[in-house]
Amino acid sequence: MSENQDLQKSFLETVKFDKNGLIPAIVQDHETGKVLMMAWMNRQSLEMTLERKKACYWSRSRQKLWLKGESSGNMQDVHDILIDCDGDTLLLKVSQIGGACHMGYHSCFYRKAKEDNSMEICDTLMFNPDEVYGKKN
Amino acid sequence: MSENQDLQKSFLETVKFDKNGLIPAIVQDHETGKVLMMAWMNRQSLEMTLERKKACYWSRSRQKLWLKGESSGNMQDVHDILIDCDGDTLLLKVSQIGGACHMGYHSCFYRKAKEDNSMEICDTLMFNPDEVYGKKN
Repeated sequence: MSENQDLQKSFLETVKFDKNGLIPAIVQDHETGKVLMMAWMNRQSLEMTLERKKACYWSRSRQKLWLKGESSGNMQDVHDILIDCDGDTLLLKVSQIGGACHMGYHSCFYRKAKEDNSMEICDTLMFNPDEVYGKKN
Repeated sequence: MSENQDLQKSFLETVKFDKNGLIPAIVQDHETGKVLMMAWMNRQSLEMTLERKKACYWSRSRQKLWLKGESSGNMQDVHDILIDCDGDTLLLKVSQIGGACHMGYHSCFYRKAKEDNSMEICDTLMFNPDEVYGKKN
């Protein structure tokens, strides 16, 4: 496929939603390249994200639109949206306010596998989740 | 959840496969932070990856194990595997030989959305896919 063929569709025509109408979106800090989280988008949340330049997802657990940071204040300003070769995964480059993770870490990927199948913490705690979301226990 | 509670399970116990027995794996260059691709793993491909330190996935289209680079030579040496807060997404930090993308680009995310809903190429062509995979047309 030539470069021209590769670009002949529009961005929104290129996006392939799965049978549930969703596409995974990888979220990366646009300056440091750190991967912060992965979330899912439906067409409406993608259109909202494109329009507002604030990341908006589809919450599979709550089955509703989820403007990231709506309750925590930890919003994501979207700089760029990239799409992969198959059109079935997005990559958002964002500025993350506070931490991305509901556990209080900067990134949701805060645990790393060790050789012995245990894990270690490999990220920085940015806030106390009990203070932001309320104590759950 | 305290840090200790967060680490009390083993890595493999923490991994949550979906109803199809799969988990998405984001693949990132371990030195530059560039996101190269996303692929899916089943338990067997994850165990092979952990053992060999070469990325191995489950090909959903071909329904078989897929040792990345087996046909193209563009293998991925795995440095680290991270897991997200929900245990349902992995992040592999790798050294990519050649390009990750079957289209010949370094990254599968070689197209970026523009303001007018068109796209532009934002990555480097690393090889001619016709030469590596054979001409398809």
